[in-house]
Amino acid sequence: MKIGIADTTFSRVDMAKCAINKIPPNYKIERYTVPGIKDLPVACKKLFEKYNCDIVIALGMPGPMSIDKQCAHEASLGIQMVQLLTNKHILEVFVHMDEVKTEKALYQLAKNRTEKHTFNALALLNGKETLTPYAGSGRRQGFDDVGRITDG
Amino acid sequence: MKIGIADTTFSRVDMAKCAINKIPPNYKIERYTVPGIKDLPVACKKLFEKYNCDIVIALGMPGPMSIDKQCAHEASLGIQMVQLLTNKHILEVFVHMDEVKTEKALYQLAKNRTEKHTFNALALLNGKETLTPYAGSGRRQGFDDVGRITDG
Amino acid sequence: MKIGIADTTFSRVDMAKCAINKIPPNYKIERYTVPGIKDLPVACKKLFEKYNCDIVIALGMPGPMSIDKQCAHEASLGIQMVQLLTNKHILEVFVHMDEVKTEKALYQLAKNRTEKHTFNALALLNGKETLTPYAGSGRRQGFDDVGRITDG
Amino acid sequence: MKIGIADTTFSRVDMAKCAINKIPPNYKIERYTVPGIKDLPVACKKLFEKYNCDIVIALGMPGPMSIDKQCAHEASLGIQMVQLLTNKHILEVFVHMDEVKTEKALYQLAKNRTEKHTFNALALLNGKETLTPYAGSGRRQGFDDVGRITDG
Amino acid sequence: MKIGIADTTFSRVDMAKCAINKIPPNYKIERYTVPGIKDLPVACKKLFEKYNCDIVIALGMPGPMSIDKQCAHEASLGIQMVQLLTNKHILEVFVHMDEVKTEKALYQLAKNRTEKHTFNALALLNGKETLTPYAGSGRRQGFDDVGRITDG
Repeated sequence: MKIGIADTTFSRVDMAKCAINKIPPNYKIERYTVPGIKDLPVACKKLFEKYNCDIVIALGMPGPMSIDKQCAHEASLGIQMVQLLTNKHILEVFVHMDEVKTEKALYQLAKNRTEKHTFNALALLNGKETLTPYAGSGRRQGFDDVGRITDG
Repeated sequence: MKIGIADTTFSRVDMAKCAINKIPPNYKIERYTVPGIKDLPVACKKLFEKYNCDIVIALGMPGPMSIDKQCAHEASLGIQMVQLLTNKHILEVFVHMDEVKTEKALYQLAKNRTEKHTFNALALLNGKETLTPYAGSGRRQGFDDVGRITDG
Repeated sequence: MKIGIADTTFSRVDMAKCAINKIPPNYKIERYTVPGIKDLPVACKKLFEKYNCDIVIALGMPGPMSIDKQCAHEASLGIQMVQLLTNKHILEVFVHMDEVKTEKALYQLAKNRTEKHTFNALALLNGKETLTPYAGSGRRQGFDDVGRITDG
Repeated sequence: MKIGIADTTFSRVDMAKCAINKIPPNYKIERYTVPGIKDLPVACKKLFEKYNCDIVIALGMPGPMSIDKQCAHEASLGIQMVQLLTNKHILEVFVHMDEVKTEKALYQLAKNRTEKHTFNALALLNGKETLTPYAGSGRRQGFDDVGRITDG
Repeated sequence: MKIGIADTTFSRVDMAKCAINKIPPNYKIERYTVPGIKDLPVACKKLFEKYNCDIVIALGMPGPMSIDKQCAHEASLGIQMVQLLTNKHILEVFVHMDEVKTEKALYQLAKNRTEKHTFNALALLNGKETLTPYAGSGRRQGFDDVGRITDG
């Protein structure tokens, strides 16, 4: 199994390192670094088609301005299209700079979200029902889980 | 006939259980659990193309923030594309966390909307005019129907 | 010539009836009823590809909330894609619930817009210049025409 | 060389006439009139594929409301897709009704923008560097040019 | 290796000149000038498919109004689609007129962003890990880099 990691020079945290640290050694890794999040979709597509990855983790850190949200939206739509053209999952790990207030919190957020989505990627590679025990359980990446609501 | 159910670990309610409870035993079910709503479109596509489902129910619970609405929009556009690429219906059942005020109401909303759309899925499998008697009658899922307005 | 009519159970007015009443008996009609506007695009595509329609009238009534506008946008983009994939026109007749204030006005708006777009559909079936005499004349559907502005 | 002109009955100005007046007699013209701007993309596609046009000028006049901007956005995305599917240019000439305050100004704006984009269409037909002498020179259509900013 | 440069007459700065000045003489250059940013996507596609470019730099300067942001969004989505259809990178260099306050600052911003993205284009042509040493280092184009955040 081969895992692709697409990341950016724009991000202020080396998110790829956080991901790579959590991938067991029996997986191959291909990395592709681009300038910004809008360069990620075609990089992901090439990781699938040229480098034969089975799943891709796309790492980005959109800025805090309104135009940055628009860029993130465009990148996300591109990532949607790549998944549908290749029938493969891309775990999109975007950390918005305005989600937290300090650089320290931003680092922790980026690290936690990246690590949890790396586990999600590994789970998805193991089959479509690997995550089913956790369905509807209010899982979060970057923050604490919020829990399941039941009938009771 | 085979019904696909795609759901998420992000949701706080096990919506898939609500759907499965309403599907008669003569239908086969394939379930696919992903982390969040943006992972649903490719899961739906694989439910059609790899698992031969005839229709898919896509279950998700977007958060209350502006960025969550954007994610829901991206997921919905992906779901549109999957339907057009496969010529099959996907019943998108999204419950926005800010639609109601309490956890109890959120559970009821999610359950009701999921169940009603499960009936819609069964109806669509029975042909393009199965729902025609209810056309223009103000049907709602999650809330009460609002009724038909006539000339009189 | 065969005209497809796609409509919803969500709408509060039986818009399809308004359309069918204005279609001359020498046209065949295929109807496809879905739950909501986001289910319309794939229904339209099937009306073209499976039921051999030459044109489709897509009827919907989006709600008044911000999220309803987003749904209408997603449906409209799907309808754009279907037209480009099939090279055929879809007359999109969407009546937004917040366009008028009373149920009576909503009914009249839905009826008028549907009827006028039914005439547009018939005109488009007759060739690309059938509507040319009315080009730039400020035609409206649902409300009164606003008229042409000339140099004088 | 054949130039396609797609226009609408919704517009309050006969923009097509403004375009046709500026096209030299050695060009063939195909016209396609549709109800509104969201009907333009498939009309443009047919002008390329069925009527063999080499370039298309798409003329529309979106209304002043928020929902009109959304419609214009949907039409524009459709026009983007048509260009990418056909590898041909579509000059999109949209005049928003709220760009100016009087009917007289609206007419002049529509006329000026249409004429200038007609010249752009003729230039693009002459090769990819025909407009290069004007690159970065602050050209505007509908309003006066704003000029080039240089290092000095 | 051949680099495509797509630019506009709408921009107030000759951004293409800034790019060309930074491309070493051993690269071939193809230039394509269009009226506005919404004409860029199909120009980029033709630079790849008709003129055999290996990468394209798309240069544009959206205006300051809300409708200009919408146009930029449409252009960006087109540029996303072109990259996915061709499996090649497009460096999108958009300078929004409201990013800075004076003409002088606008010129410097356009020049700096164009030059830095030209270096990015050259780096991407050299392989998917050429930029990896700078991953997560807070690089900016047009403004100063903001730096990497680490665990410490």
